[in-house]
This record gives sequence, C-alpha cells and structure tokens, in this order.
Amino acid sequence: MSVLSFAAISQKLSLSRRLFLGGSLAATALPAAARAQEAAPSANLGARQLPARTLPVPSTVSEGLQAVIAEPYPPGWNALPADAAAWKSLAVKSAAGAAPAIAAIRQHFGLTVEQTKMGGVPVFVITPQEIAPENRDRLFVHLHGGGYVLFPGEAGAGEGMLMAGYGRCKVVSIDYRMAPDFPYPAALDDVMAVWGVLLAAYNPRKMAIFGTSAGGALTLAAILRAKAEGLALPGAIAPGSPVADLTWSGDSIMANAFVDNALVSRRSWANAAGALYAGQNDPRDPMISPIFGDFTGFPPAILTSGTRDLLLSDTVRAHRKLRKAGVPAALQVLEGQSHAQYLSPFLPETEDAFDEIMQFFNKHLA
Amino acid sequence: MSVLSFAAISQKLSLSRRLFLGGSLAATALPAAARAQEAAPSANLGARQLPARTLPVPSTVSEGLQAVIAEPYPPGWNALPADAAAWKSLAVKSAAGAAPAIAAIRQHFGLTVEQTKMGGVPVFVITPQEIAPENRDRLFVHLHGGGYVLFPGEAGAGEGMLMAGYGRCKVVSIDYRMAPDFPYPAALDDVMAVWGVLLAAYNPRKMAIFGTSAGGALTLAAILRAKAEGLALPGAIAPGSPVADLTWSGDSIMANAFVDNALVSRRSWANAAGALYAGQNDPRDPMISPIFGDFTGFPPAILTSGTRDLLLSDTVRAHRKLRKAGVPAALQVLEGQSHAQYLSPFLPETEDAFDEIMQFFNKHLA
Repeated sequence: MSVLSFAAISQKLSLSRRLFLGGSLAATALPAAARAQEAAPSANLGARQLPARTLPVPSTVSEGLQAVIAEPYPPGWNALPADAAAWKSLAVKSAAGAAPAIAAIRQHFGLTVEQTKMGGVPVFVITPQEIAPENRDRLFVHLHGGGYVLFPGEAGAGEGMLMAGYGRCKVVSIDYRMAPDFPYPAALDDVMAVWGVLLAAYNPRKMAIFGTSAGGALTLAAILRAKAEGLALPGAIAPGSPVADLTWSGDSIMANAFVDNALVSRRSWANAAGALYAGQNDPRDPMISPIFGDFTGFPPAILTSGTRDLLLSDTVRAHRKLRKAGVPAALQVLEGQSHAQYLSPFLPETEDAFDEIMQFFNKHLA
Repeated sequence: MSVLSFAAISQKLSLSRRLFLGGSLAATALPAAARAQEAAPSANLGARQLPARTLPVPSTVSEGLQAVIAEPYPPGWNALPADAAAWKSLAVKSAAGAAPAIAAIRQHFGLTVEQTKMGGVPVFVITPQEIAPENRDRLFVHLHGGGYVLFPGEAGAGEGMLMAGYGRCKVVSIDYRMAPDFPYPAALDDVMAVWGVLLAAYNPRKMAIFGTSAGGALTLAAILRAKAEGLALPGAIAPGSPVADLTWSGDSIMANAFVDNALVSRRSWANAAGALYAGQNDPRDPMISPIFGDFTGFPPAILTSGTRDLLLSDTVRAHRKLRKAGVPAALQVLEGQSHAQYLSPFLPETEDAFDEIMQFFNKHLA
C-alpha cells in the first residue's frame, strides 16, 4: 500500500482530521458540499469567509510592545505614489522620518558611525564602544529593508546599529542603489561588490550577512548569487521576515491581512515597491524571489518573524526549504508581532530577538 | 542613558516603526488619537477592528494539504455538551469516528499494535515492521491530544502510530484517564506512573516524550513534574501545538480565530474541555498550564505549529521561554496549517514534519 490515490487520501484525511484535531465531534459524514470541496480542491472552492471581528492587544507581551501592537495602521499605508518622482519623494521623507530614531539608537549604544565606500558602494561602518571578545575578528554585513525603495543613506542603517549595539560587534551596512531609478539587479550588484571587497580582508567564516524584509530577501539572494559565482559564503546568515516571494503567494499574505499593522495587506505600498524593483524581470527569478532558488549548501541561517507578520509564510517557507536542503536553520517567531516589529528599539523582546540571533552566530561563525 | 521612561520609549517606537517597517511613509506626526493610544496602551484602546474578508486556499502547499485547508469548520465545533454524560458520549463518538483512520495508518505502515498495561495504566505498544538501527535501544512515549476528554483507547494512538511508521521506532502511547470523570491530575498521574515503569527498563537519555495539543501540554507538564519529583528526564521532547495556557491568553487565540478550521475559535469545545480538565484547580497552575512553569533544565525540545494555528502563540511562547531558559529548542511552523494539521496522515508535509522531529531526536538522544 505504498501509493494512495488522491481520492483515497482525501477520504482518509477527512476521517483523520476528525480524529486528531478533535474538530468535528460527530461521527457522521461531512455534508455533501464539503465532500465536493474535498474532491476538487481549489482556491475558489475552499475559500473561507472570515467574519468581521475585534482583535485586542495581547497581555502576553511587554508594555512597550503592547504600545507597538496597539498602533493604528500607518497613515498612507495604501496610498501608492503615482510616478517615479513621487516614489523618490517618499524615499526622502522616509529618511527624514527615520532620522530621530537613528539618532536615538546611536546615542543609546554610544555607536560610532562612519560613512565610506567599498567597491564604489556607499556603506556605513558601525562600531560599538566595546566589541565582545568573540566578535573581535568578525564582521557583520547588514542589508536594510524598505521594499527596495525606502530608507536611503543612514536611515537604512538602523537595524545594523541595533546589531552593533546589542551584539557588541562591528557592522557594515550597505547603502545599495534602489528603485525606481535602479531596479534589479542594482541592489544585488552593490551587495556583491561590497562582499568581494570584504572577502579580501576577512575570513568569510567569520562574517555573517543579515537583514530584514527586503534586506532579508537580499540576504538570501546574495547567497544564491555567491553560489552561482563561486564566491566564498559567509559563516552564517540571518534573514528576517524576508520578502522571499514577490509573487505574494504565501498564505499569511491573506491570513494576516489587516491583522498586521505594519504592512497591513498586499494592497500596501510594499507590493508596488516590489514590482518596481523587479522591473521587466520575472518576479519568479530566484535572484528576485529567493524562495524559488536552490538552498543547497547555504550557510547556517536563523530566521525571525512574528505571529501577526504578513510575511510569516515567506519566513517559514524559507525555513522549511532550508531544512529540507539539509541546512542548519533556526526559526524564532515572536508573539503578537507584525512585520519587522522585532526591530523596535529598546523593547525587551527586541533585545531577546537580537540575543537569539547573536547566539546563533556565535555557534556557527568561526 | 541606561533607563528610558516608558513615554520616551513610546515616542521612539512610533518613530522607529516608521523607520524600519516602512509602514507610515509620511514624516508627519501621528494623529492625536493614535498618540493617545500609545500613551495609555490597553487591550481596549488598542483593539483592532478587522473587516470581513475572504481567505483563499494557498497554492504554496501540496494538493492533499490544500484539501485539508479547504475543509469547512467542523460540524458542531461550538456545540458544547450539556453535562458529563454528554461529554462521555462525545468521547465515544470521537473514538468511533477515528477508527477508520487508525486502521488505515496501521495498515499503511504495517504496524503491530499491542494493548497492555504499565504501572496499572493502559498503553498501546506500537512496533513498526523494521526499527531504524539508531532507534534500536530507544523508546518514544506518546501522549495524545483531544482536550483531555476525547479519543479514549486506540483512537488516541494515531499520532504515536505515525511516529512509529515515519520514524521507524517503537512507541508507547499512554491511554490516560480523562475528564469529566477524571480531571487534573489524573492524566498526569497516569503519565508519571508509566514513566516510572519505563525508567526501570530504559536509559532515560534514550527516550523521548512527544504529543500534540493536550498531549503537547502534558509533555511539558510531565517534565515539570519529573523535575519536581527528582526523576530522570527524557533525552528530548516534542510538544506539538501545546495547549500550554488554559487561560487562553495567547495572541493567536484571537488573531487566528476563524482562520483556523480545526479549533476555529476560543468558543469551541476545546475551551470547555480545558475547564473540565482543570476542574477546581487554578488554570494558572504550571502543571495545568505549563507556560507558567520554570523551563530551566528541560531536555532539548522541538515544537511544531502552523501559520493558521489557533495555538501558534502558545507554541512560540513556549519556544521562546525554553530558549530564554537556555534549552536547545527548535521550532517548525508549517505553511497554511491550522491546529494539529501536521498529523494528517500520508501528506508530504506530514512526512516532512515527522522527519524533522526525528532528526531532532537523533541529534539529541543517546
């Protein structure tokens, strides 16, 4: 009985589901309509109608995180810029809006932030007051988020500054070129240019690459590209809530719509920004949507997401795919958090998340 | 600047959120109402009003799993039995409903299932046709789910049979006493009685304990109890989607309400069943709700959940708490799956999930 027909499996599933899940308590058969759905599963037939409902702020997180979760949807979350000029204006505004938080993080940790260039690409070199002994010879490469369009300049370095501060390590944050002026592959080209420079100066096994959202996708894509080019790989990576799939097919894109108060839904600016980045290229290209790539031989990876994250599915799909490829890969999912909220500075949950990532790095870096 | 006031943190959060998450694109201040919410975060003030919406079946899973995801809510999911007799009648029905799937699993893997007693407690000893070489001297102890009320007898052994079949290992599945006749601590007493017998026959470092839902909670509670009693601990555990918190405070209880098509919402039978189990005891007792316990010294643990799971939060909270206690703990979250759906037999995702658990066991068991 090695091969079961799909119909037979379906039949057993409906039985087993009643068995294990304690869902349906009656021993009676499912209604005919349900059976029809099972016989011909499809997105249309099986779609669930969710009622309107009230989602409270959970009591299971810190007060600071409760404040983050309680925030309304960001003003303008689904107001899409009309043209390239409007996108660029938005990028400028995003940097201005970020400036106070950037200053606060830098001050809080007493960081030194130096702007320079590597391989012709602007980068920020972030140094904490004290580097942890185990991190003395290590370098951590940061790829920022913002949908490949936002947070130019130092505004993009905030996550890198948090890693430098919490992890007491030296970070290089890459200020890569962005859409709409520079769609794919400009950002990835810039990352690889910096990586090439760093390979000449550091033991790759003592380097890690990390980033969140678009930065998480770039982290995965950079490994695919390094593999394709025969370059040395870093000792570990930390792609956080990666935009791993620009076809937006992950289940949480729909399941967490309006639950997530950061990205909110696929009608947000992020979707349009992703299309700008892909440009004329197929969004299924693994260098653009790394979930479609081959993860064999990837370095150890730790992935981070939240239970409310619109990209929870992208994260767990990437995690499962890494594990199936035999890669040592860890996953942490943070209670109540929407997309990338583990980057909220100074929260206990944020410190925990970075501690977990740094523990993983310590375990796997040379 | 080591201590920041909550107000200052809130202020920075609202800035940083705009920074990292790319949420709010305007550099303008948040509306006054939003600021008021931030200043006084509370469940009432920060509650989100979710619109009604359609949730399609994802394309990112196997056809078999799509059929599971497409199923309607289980008939009677929120029809609560009126009295003890009605609960017991439901338990009998649950066993009858499970019987065909149990038979199919046993047949599919060619399992031998022997009913016996250990320490006076009925158990099922499950043996596959061939035991994997590395599992020759090992024993895997299974604690079944069903809200501490359902799946008496062999009906509870299905998950144990899947482990025996996929993992090619010997399993003892404990048919513990259940509510309403036997509330807490009867089930846990039975588990400990069997554990005591097994400790006399097996190296504890060569044993694992696993189970899903109520069985996941019992797995965690058994470790707390063994610690309290000074008994040897197993070499590893696998609590799946544990009912770790009978106060039902996890965020996904609300966030995944009606998204999960197994438990559906906290108005389901499972909530009432949990109260039956707790009986006159405080549901915050760690032996009843292990999330409130001390996880220090726990054996390595792998936790499993799904992105649509009503108990995703219980799972990730337990995972994070284990990690903070310094326990080697892994997490896998399965795309699109509701509560305990990784137990659906013969799906590729189910085989993957069990493979991942067995790999973890192989890494940590003696």
